[in-house]
Amino acid sequence: MNVSIAIGDKQTAAGFAADVPPQIAAFLQVPSSTLWAQQLAADLPTLLIDHANCELKAASTALALLHRYARNDALAWRLSRLAREELRHYEQVREWLRHYEIDYSPLSAAAYARGLRDEVALQEPERLVDTLIVGALIEARSCERFALIAPLLDAPLARFYRGLLASESRHFEHYLELADAHFEGEIDARVDALRIVEQQLIVAPTEALRFHSGPLADE
Amino acid sequence: MNVSIAIGDKQTAAGFAADVPPQIAAFLQVPSSTLWAQQLAADLPTLLIDHANCELKAASTALALLHRYARNDALAWRLSRLAREELRHYEQVREWLRHYEIDYSPLSAAAYARGLRDEVALQEPERLVDTLIVGALIEARSCERFALIAPLLDAPLARFYRGLLASESRHFEHYLELADAHFEGEIDARVDALRIVEQQLIVAPTEALRFHSGPLADE
Repeated sequence: MNVSIAIGDKQTAAGFAADVPPQIAAFLQVPSSTLWAQQLAADLPTLLIDHANCELKAASTALALLHRYARNDALAWRLSRLAREELRHYEQVREWLRHYEIDYSPLSAAAYARGLRDEVALQEPERLVDTLIVGALIEARSCERFALIAPLLDAPLARFYRGLLASESRHFEHYLELADAHFEGEIDARVDALRIVEQQLIVAPTEALRFHSGPLADE
Repeated sequence: MNVSIAIGDKQTAAGFAADVPPQIAAFLQVPSSTLWAQQLAADLPTLLIDHANCELKAASTALALLHRYARNDALAWRLSRLAREELRHYEQVREWLRHYEIDYSPLSAAAYARGLRDEVALQEPERLVDTLIVGALIEARSCERFALIAPLLDAPLARFYRGLLASESRHFEHYLELADAHFEGEIDARVDALRIVEQQLIVAPTEALRFHSGPLADE
């Protein structure tokens, strides 16, 4: 893996919020819009319901990989633990919904994860490699957004999101390590190609604000 | 819930192994065959691989319910925790596979869970009630079988299965409580009907020995 942006301990890649870990900024390369963060911080039901959905879907995706690649011991070891952590965060977000007396109500998913999955190769071993790189991108973007939105929230909720950032900030590297271990060649070209799609998906203005959407189109 | 077999602290319903918790024996009513336990204890790869599959499937089923019934707060609270525990057990069974140097290899599922799911009502609210009762039956049967097979295994593995019995022995009650809370009427008639199907599935001789199968047909 060649992460090509030179970064010091304190310095973060251009445009990223100060709290974004430098290795995440270097991996993503393009920061999320601050307008998106302002809009979503002002809509707590959407933030919390969509975030709960994202944690549950992340766990479900990990379990689907455990079923499909059951022979892969390293993957089983890593993804089962990731899924457990995501379920714990799912429970915590549901507790925040209760705290704010927000009824859980169905919310359509952002186009983001589906847009990335559409890019995944159909044949192995590329299929698994792409799936793991997509997992890395989603994890890294989630952490960047935890850091970006935390300062805009009430203090206890901000603490929660900073805690999530701390506990999930290495997840993207776990996914990349699995991709690297599974593939004989270099994965850099696939990382580059999928990262460009991720950047397009994350900046595009949206009709429906979500944790992984761009900012609302009409503002 | 009316669990109708009178049982003392030490006395277990007729035919059940001594270590089976009395409330589990009272719920299941029909014990597993000791021949099944002897056969499966002699086939460690099948026991451990199928058990790993069962834990992963139990977690996946819980997650599918969390997606489908996301508005149900009590269910979200309970099933996410159950899923995490099952994933932890999945990881532990995979560690036993490594310990015994058994390669994970694909294994078809027993007809048991599918046979029970085939009985689930198609319309709500009966669909969820039936699904939860099926969950209770599978959990209770798993515990009964942990107790039955543990004495036939090497001491460290026997300890592991006794530990699973201790940590999962109340799961079936959690499922029944959720079913009770979700349904306005009495669930006893559905418990009785599904229990009879469960008993038929668990005693029927099989061509393929599994954690939830009957004994092999040709012995």
